[in-house]
Amino acid sequence: MALKLVVIGGGSSYTPEIIEGMIKRYDSFPVSEIVLVDIEAGKGKLEVIGNLALRMVEKSGKPIKLSWTLDREKALENADFVSTQIRVGGLDARAKDERIPLSHGFIGQETNGAGGIMKAFRTIPVLMELAEDVHRICPNAWIINFTNPAGIVTEALLKHSFHQKVIGVCNIPFNMRHSTAEILNVSPEDVRIEFVGMNHFVFGKKVYVQGIDRTNEVLEKLQGDKLNYSPANIVNLGWSKTFIESTGLLPNPYHQYYFQTRDVLKKDIQSFHEHGTRAEKVMELEKSLFEIYSNQQLQDKPKELEERGGAFYSDVACSLMDSIYNNREDVQTVNTTNNGAIPDLPDDAVIEVNSVITSHGPEPITEGALPASVKGIVYQMKAFEELVILAAITGDYNDAYKAFVMNPLMGDEKQSKIVLDELLTAHQSYLPQFHF
Amino acid sequence: MALKLVVIGGGSSYTPEIIEGMIKRYDSFPVSEIVLVDIEAGKGKLEVIGNLALRMVEKSGKPIKLSWTLDREKALENADFVSTQIRVGGLDARAKDERIPLSHGFIGQETNGAGGIMKAFRTIPVLMELAEDVHRICPNAWIINFTNPAGIVTEALLKHSFHQKVIGVCNIPFNMRHSTAEILNVSPEDVRIEFVGMNHFVFGKKVYVQGIDRTNEVLEKLQGDKLNYSPANIVNLGWSKTFIESTGLLPNPYHQYYFQTRDVLKKDIQSFHEHGTRAEKVMELEKSLFEIYSNQQLQDKPKELEERGGAFYSDVACSLMDSIYNNREDVQTVNTTNNGAIPDLPDDAVIEVNSVITSHGPEPITEGALPASVKGIVYQMKAFEELVILAAITGDYNDAYKAFVMNPLMGDEKQSKIVLDELLTAHQSYLPQFHF
Amino acid sequence: MALKLVVIGGGSSYTPEIIEGMIKRYDSFPVSEIVLVDIEAGKGKLEVIGNLALRMVEKSGKPIKLSWTLDREKALENADFVSTQIRVGGLDARAKDERIPLSHGFIGQETNGAGGIMKAFRTIPVLMELAEDVHRICPNAWIINFTNPAGIVTEALLKHSFHQKVIGVCNIPFNMRHSTAEILNVSPEDVRIEFVGMNHFVFGKKVYVQGIDRTNEVLEKLQGDKLNYSPANIVNLGWSKTFIESTGLLPNPYHQYYFQTRDVLKKDIQSFHEHGTRAEKVMELEKSLFEIYSNQQLQDKPKELEERGGAFYSDVACSLMDSIYNNREDVQTVNTTNNGAIPDLPDDAVIEVNSVITSHGPEPITEGALPASVKGIVYQMKAFEELVILAAITGDYNDAYKAFVMNPLMGDEKQSKIVLDELLTAHQSYLPQFHF
Amino acid sequence: MALKLVVIGGGSSYTPEIIEGMIKRYDSFPVSEIVLVDIEAGKGKLEVIGNLALRMVEKSGKPIKLSWTLDREKALENADFVSTQIRVGGLDARAKDERIPLSHGFIGQETNGAGGIMKAFRTIPVLMELAEDVHRICPNAWIINFTNPAGIVTEALLKHSFHQKVIGVCNIPFNMRHSTAEILNVSPEDVRIEFVGMNHFVFGKKVYVQGIDRTNEVLEKLQGDKLNYSPANIVNLGWSKTFIESTGLLPNPYHQYYFQTRDVLKKDIQSFHEHGTRAEKVMELEKSLFEIYSNQQLQDKPKELEERGGAFYSDVACSLMDSIYNNREDVQTVNTTNNGAIPDLPDDAVIEVNSVITSHGPEPITEGALPASVKGIVYQMKAFEELVILAAITGDYNDAYKAFVMNPLMGDEKQSKIVLDELLTAHQSYLPQFHF
Ligand SMILES: [Mn+2]
Ligand SMILES: [Mn+2]
Ligand SMILES: [Mn+2]
Ligand SMILES: [Mn+2]
Repeated sequence: MALKLVVIGGGSSYTPEIIEGMIKRYDSFPVSEIVLVDIEAGKGKLEVIGNLALRMVEKSGKPIKLSWTLDREKALENADFVSTQIRVGGLDARAKDERIPLSHGFIGQETNGAGGIMKAFRTIPVLMELAEDVHRICPNAWIINFTNPAGIVTEALLKHSFHQKVIGVCNIPFNMRHSTAEILNVSPEDVRIEFVGMNHFVFGKKVYVQGIDRTNEVLEKLQGDKLNYSPANIVNLGWSKTFIESTGLLPNPYHQYYFQTRDVLKKDIQSFHEHGTRAEKVMELEKSLFEIYSNQQLQDKPKELEERGGAFYSDVACSLMDSIYNNREDVQTVNTTNNGAIPDLPDDAVIEVNSVITSHGPEPITEGALPASVKGIVYQMKAFEELVILAAITGDYNDAYKAFVMNPLMGDEKQSKIVLDELLTAHQSYLPQFHF
Repeated sequence: MALKLVVIGGGSSYTPEIIEGMIKRYDSFPVSEIVLVDIEAGKGKLEVIGNLALRMVEKSGKPIKLSWTLDREKALENADFVSTQIRVGGLDARAKDERIPLSHGFIGQETNGAGGIMKAFRTIPVLMELAEDVHRICPNAWIINFTNPAGIVTEALLKHSFHQKVIGVCNIPFNMRHSTAEILNVSPEDVRIEFVGMNHFVFGKKVYVQGIDRTNEVLEKLQGDKLNYSPANIVNLGWSKTFIESTGLLPNPYHQYYFQTRDVLKKDIQSFHEHGTRAEKVMELEKSLFEIYSNQQLQDKPKELEERGGAFYSDVACSLMDSIYNNREDVQTVNTTNNGAIPDLPDDAVIEVNSVITSHGPEPITEGALPASVKGIVYQMKAFEELVILAAITGDYNDAYKAFVMNPLMGDEKQSKIVLDELLTAHQSYLPQFHF
Repeated sequence: MALKLVVIGGGSSYTPEIIEGMIKRYDSFPVSEIVLVDIEAGKGKLEVIGNLALRMVEKSGKPIKLSWTLDREKALENADFVSTQIRVGGLDARAKDERIPLSHGFIGQETNGAGGIMKAFRTIPVLMELAEDVHRICPNAWIINFTNPAGIVTEALLKHSFHQKVIGVCNIPFNMRHSTAEILNVSPEDVRIEFVGMNHFVFGKKVYVQGIDRTNEVLEKLQGDKLNYSPANIVNLGWSKTFIESTGLLPNPYHQYYFQTRDVLKKDIQSFHEHGTRAEKVMELEKSLFEIYSNQQLQDKPKELEERGGAFYSDVACSLMDSIYNNREDVQTVNTTNNGAIPDLPDDAVIEVNSVITSHGPEPITEGALPASVKGIVYQMKAFEELVILAAITGDYNDAYKAFVMNPLMGDEKQSKIVLDELLTAHQSYLPQFHF
Repeated sequence: MALKLVVIGGGSSYTPEIIEGMIKRYDSFPVSEIVLVDIEAGKGKLEVIGNLALRMVEKSGKPIKLSWTLDREKALENADFVSTQIRVGGLDARAKDERIPLSHGFIGQETNGAGGIMKAFRTIPVLMELAEDVHRICPNAWIINFTNPAGIVTEALLKHSFHQKVIGVCNIPFNMRHSTAEILNVSPEDVRIEFVGMNHFVFGKKVYVQGIDRTNEVLEKLQGDKLNYSPANIVNLGWSKTFIESTGLLPNPYHQYYFQTRDVLKKDIQSFHEHGTRAEKVMELEKSLFEIYSNQQLQDKPKELEERGGAFYSDVACSLMDSIYNNREDVQTVNTTNNGAIPDLPDDAVIEVNSVITSHGPEPITEGALPASVKGIVYQMKAFEELVILAAITGDYNDAYKAFVMNPLMGDEKQSKIVLDELLTAHQSYLPQFHF
């Protein structure tokens, strides 16, 4: 039986992970065809990745038909799964998202604050178009959305596109589970964390090992000075004993932007002055990665990819596709419609939540009311996300401004306008929905 | 490792099913000790059942220590699971629950209408006492509540006792799954029904076979004249094409009392005049069952038990205990706290809901808003259940009256008083909380 | 300054009340023009009423321009207020609404049960059309909707028409206030009742006299055998002490259909056999009223009108228009959007609620959670009303059936179909939205 | 008929306003007795105020019995109204609330941020004690709470004391109404603003003049550079056109702390370095006010009081008491229980809301869902307020920390601890509920 995967943004440096994942899982998830799709501007990289992927498949001996193309519509024909990992405007755009807010004294980050808002503004229209294509060409296909800000983008698609088979994924819950397993010296498969919140603003509420609650043990170990379960791309400043103890929650690495704003800002501004933006570092990293990829002897995902920061991304996505395909009814953490799982949040909000994965989609497990300590900030972040989505769809300046002024990392009514104006101008060519 | 099960109401004719279930599941659920507990009045039956259970265990060769006792407190020591299957007032009381409402022209049924309310009034105080014992003597034990009205009783315990490890079970979801499998000619393991509602008022919203939605196929087949998936104790009148088609839901057998009231009433009154109450039929059935049980050669659950009406009850309970013990994280349908699964109902309501079963308890899967067609009646039934629980706890006459007048099968403000008064008098000795 | 009132259904026998009300209130509400509008079939009655109204205005000496017409669009030009009091299908249709359900053993009543549903089905499309005319021709005008079922009709307009300046009125809250004043021997102006619920299903929760809570006193007096505050058209059977005491609420006269169903049904069937339907009685009443109206000497509302059953209707409507016109910010009981006043009900539900009346519309006063005793039945009635509105708009048979089967006075899945089918056929010519 | 007012904190410099208000309203609100109560430490000021008040009453010729005492319990006997205007720790404590956060680079303000939290911690226990006294000694009396943070304090009393007749008042809504009247050049009596939010975080959503919506006109005029409707104690920086236009809301003067944080902080730090804290300025003001008050010739409220910043406070409170006494059913803006007025916020939250004022208390008018632009921040502020109240009641360090870290003006997990620790130590003697 045919089983076809289309990778949108196939020229991404992450693609070898997906290829590896597909090969590894072939027995239970027998993908028969993979098509890597990219746009004209990414043609060169697509070629490199396509060739490497081909060598990987060949080495594996699996009967997978692999190809690459710029013709998205054709690629989508008969697709069963469509994964998305695009970066509208590329790393140049990311550099602006990081630099411009920082230069005004605000957090400049890829998926948080002003930078994250702009990334959503650039990305949502492109993925809306993809969703409509999918709905028309391969209406039974699942979109597995890697593209950041993954939660916001997924909510935008589920609210505004006709295609409703969309799931957002992130490696943060996966990383937190693995780091927690390490802390407790147990196997990651035995660990389940009950998550509450949204993508990149998710907290761990309970840690179970083989069903036994060991949350307190983890919380105690987290209070150490620099104990760390952050991914490679985020430097962790460590959490205070008081914060961990009083909230009783496991923060995720991105929470430092919200609860350690002063120190992170100081550190990031200094780092920016010394080394430039993170985007610029990544550009170098990518350059050397693609040199490695181009090596015609290479038949495997090179270990250098792990330093890139997105480790396990493909593990997360491949596990998800496998469980959908096989109707496994296992529990995975995905970005999907709330539906009452957190009664404080709107039923149609997208949250990052433990869900039973079936062939007809994820079924979120109820979380119950948000913990009193964070319910205010979680609700505000969701209300902010709604403003971002609205502005991304309408292209209305005032809507965009409201998203800025209601973001906890911006907030200032006058500065918000200044930073927004500069960013809109900088990204103008990727914001067709806005009128200039 | 010790694993101890205490069966409250151990002298019940259903007990051999549990014993059989424990033996069958021994490899994955290695129960080391079973204690059957009953009250003085049930001593004779307990003796018969205890001896039969012993013969069953002996035949199995499993190293299970089996005993029986009237000393509940002692039995509870070190218990891991406590199952309850009691009938306060016995079948005599049931006969009154059936006869008295019928004699006034209202549905007289064990778990619905006036009869169900009275059963709750008699049962809740007894199980509250058990829950307090469990909380004091074996606080880590799970109470698996079979006792009807199972949903109401479970909500009463979860709201008013300190012990919070309580799960209610019923065989209706299990039966619906099996009947549906039969209808579709597939294996029951491959069928999952998405249930919405409460115990004995639950609807099937979606039927999935290996994750594929086949609801419409089932609905079409249900429209046939007398197609039936009722348990033995409920005669089915068949559902009209219009009802099935317009609601798009699978009714459960008890729904006939609500949506076919006239016909059921007519039939039940006639049957009562011809054959007496169902309780009286069951008394005969029980009598002959206990004769069979007393046969010292019998070493197995006799097939006559199936006619008794509670088939699969123990399958449901044993599967549940197995999944808790082994932290299986599989999906089962249980009575547990809503927690947002159905946003229309209170978060602390007990509903019958598909849940992930873990060692720390069931985690309900979100259902989303109730279907528009039944949201009114489901909400009303839950509000009615709250009134029943309140009255069962307070013993206040006016609270009891409100439960009667707000029950859709009663409703009449004058008749409610008449029927309530007669029932209160009839059951006086089992209603210590009410003042006479 | 011009102030124009258009009376839709101007040929109604109630119209003299409105005329009288306008004359009485002229000083504070100086209406400069009144146009009575009716349809071809009502031309004769319109002529009679128009002439009587003219004589009343002339006698009053107020400078009110009064006219009547069949040209609705022209009449609506520059209207400030549009009152509606229509009866689609006339009293013949009402007779069918009463007779057909009764003949199957169900309550047959103008605004409750099967009859009320059919009245909604006939009325909503006609008023939707009116609302669209108003929105186009006189968009600033307020529609004051007298037409029954007033709450359901108002909700239908507010949910489905573009015109949002719509308020529903009923004389029941007014009557309850006056009867309560009588019971307490105080002035009606000093009495305020806190109402909860919907039109014709509203309860009194609190009775204040000059701000002082005197609810218990009223409840005690209501328990008397036949104490009565019903309007002329509803025979009251009296409420039991237990019902009043346990709910702690003032029922409205229509509640007898729900809580005294057996007795009402018995009485209504007997009365039907002896005297025919209420509609038929009203036809006679109307006939003699119009004879009186035709008397060219008559220059006042004749006292015989009071027997007709709708006493105070125009008082309610005239007070409301006066307060809107003068931005009085006084408290009146109207049918308007819930908006959180009763948190248990949908925000967009229309409820009958005490509201501050301003020039920009009614502002409901919060009620808080529904009383536990009636929250189930109130919620169910609202859910039922939603089904009625849906069916009235879609004309879908299954939607209509769901409204029937989920109505507490119908409920039976098989009988609902039989009664619905007979009613649909009987009213076919007034149900263009349904396909036959 | 006796009508007794007790003024808790009677030695406050504001008291002459209340005395003047009582004299002015004597005809409709015939207060027969006023007792000013204060504590030992305020004895000297109480003496001065008491004597001035006596001279004012004498000059008025009204038959009001005026006295002052330190014996609160005796004073409360037979009280009808109890107004509270206390400052636990006096202006010295306020100076610390302002200075300490500022010294760490955070907003230092009396009712916002860290300062406001500490004021709540000091005040709530004292007013809880008062509420219990009132409940025991004069259970029918209304507490009219002026004491800041007025919304938080009122919520604390309504949630945790037995006394439920408590209403919070603030002059901000009154000021906004008056300033708006000035902007529109109309009479304040003709203006009604629809408020949404909480005390000191309230927005104006709609401005009506004689019932006509003139919101947009006001919004346009607010966009001017320095247009101002702030009270004397808050320097206004002016709102940007974009902020006003995009939110479509009237901010209140305290909103500058949240949406102009950088500029306010800069200004406040500079002002602190040049002139010290606002508390210190007030101390001087108070000193000279009391000199004026001591003048035995003075028989009126001196005009210098207006500069003090609390203008109209007593107008607000006196109007409220008058409407309660006379059951006026007029609309006033008070701090009372939400009860569904804003469905997004908890039903038991205290909000600042337009309410119908009756003898049995304020009845909030429904607001409907919060505007999308501010729903996140309003919800967060309410969640924060809940944390403050919890900590004020429990005296738990972690609860206090959570209130700090979840306050938008603090937020930083490490700095929050530092500032909290310094403030706890500084106010130790006024925080008996905290353990040191
Ligand atoms: Mn991520
Ligand atoms: Mn059952
Ligand atoms: Mn009516
Ligand atoms: Mn204030």
